[in-house]
Amino acid sequence: MNYPKGVKNSNTNNYIKFDNRGMDLEQDINITNQYYVDKNIAFIYKKPTPITVTKIDYKNNSVIIKEGYFKEPSTTDYNGLYKGLYIDFEAKETSSKTSFPLSNIHKHQIVHLKHIIDNGGIGFLIVRFSSLNKDFILMAKDLMSFLKNNDRKSIPLDYFLDNGYEINISYMPRLDYLKVIDMIIGGNNGK
Amino acid sequence: MNYPKGVKNSNTNNYIKFDNRGMDLEQDINITNQYYVDKNIAFIYKKPTPITVTKIDYKNNSVIIKEGYFKEPSTTDYNGLYKGLYIDFEAKETSSKTSFPLSNIHKHQIVHLKHIIDNGGIGFLIVRFSSLNKDFILMAKDLMSFLKNNDRKSIPLDYFLDNGYEINISYMPRLDYLKVIDMIIGGNNGK
Repeated sequence: MNYPKGVKNSNTNNYIKFDNRGMDLEQDINITNQYYVDKNIAFIYKKPTPITVTKIDYKNNSVIIKEGYFKEPSTTDYNGLYKGLYIDFEAKETSSKTSFPLSNIHKHQIVHLKHIIDNGGIGFLIVRFSSLNKDFILMAKDLMSFLKNNDRKSIPLDYFLDNGYEINISYMPRLDYLKVIDMIIGGNNGK
Repeated sequence: MNYPKGVKNSNTNNYIKFDNRGMDLEQDINITNQYYVDKNIAFIYKKPTPITVTKIDYKNNSVIIKEGYFKEPSTTDYNGLYKGLYIDFEAKETSSKTSFPLSNIHKHQIVHLKHIIDNGGIGFLIVRFSSLNKDFILMAKDLMSFLKNNDRKSIPLDYFLDNGYEINISYMPRLDYLKVIDMIIGGNNGK
């Protein structure tokens, strides 16, 4: 689940971090996207976290949500435009050194990515192996291909090394994934 | 603000409808989008409503939002893919017979639509004049042009008649806006 960072836990009154699913990766992507906007390179943004609201209240003319639940995401986290192309991806982080657990990706997100490629968009995952300091793009078609041909509950690192594309961390932009996408759609995706 | 339909009001314990901003239009668009998906015509979907969560709680291992607020939307409601093209729009309803109040559109949404057209996407509004039974597409460039040349707080119906494109309600799909988009991008947008 995609819990916002630093939400107040009313049990303890402390700000806590709920999980390790890639807030740092998220931050790297967000500042990269801001760079792309500032330089008129691309317009890619994060979608809101889906929430079901079940109870609301009023106070001083404003509406307060008094009860709600995080929904299982039915789409990916990011989408946008790059040179007129539809870009759509999910970003995930794993501390594993050997494989990426598929439990990180919801079934609806896989269906979503399938719709994206079926309709001529560019869909992919960005996966960070945080213990290895490695970030990969795995194109949606290669994800689908893995899921079709494997019963495994995780994608081995080797699959990323063979079928994915590594993104190098740099100063500015921090995580230049569109450079990699350029290379992939530019015809060098024959591997 | 974009309040979900049928949210429980904890003051009255009744299900109420919060505003008149186009739940029916939303429904027409949603069933049209479902038709597009079912017929493999396009993949266009509604983004989640942006919410700031400020307090959460735990109960039986699940996370419950105990306090949150509806955020002013920074993007449009709908986006997706049609024949490889990036489609992005906001849908609004007005009961006025003479003009569309600009207070319906947030500043961030206008910036968003500008980003869309600057990066080669297809951005527009769908505006329903519910008292007139008329639905229009107003392309983002024509919205920008109006905003640039006018200080008015609403867009007159005449502007839609002159610069917009009417969408006819039909049986299936209910609101075939992509047919109109086809016509517009097909070259008949010289008006």
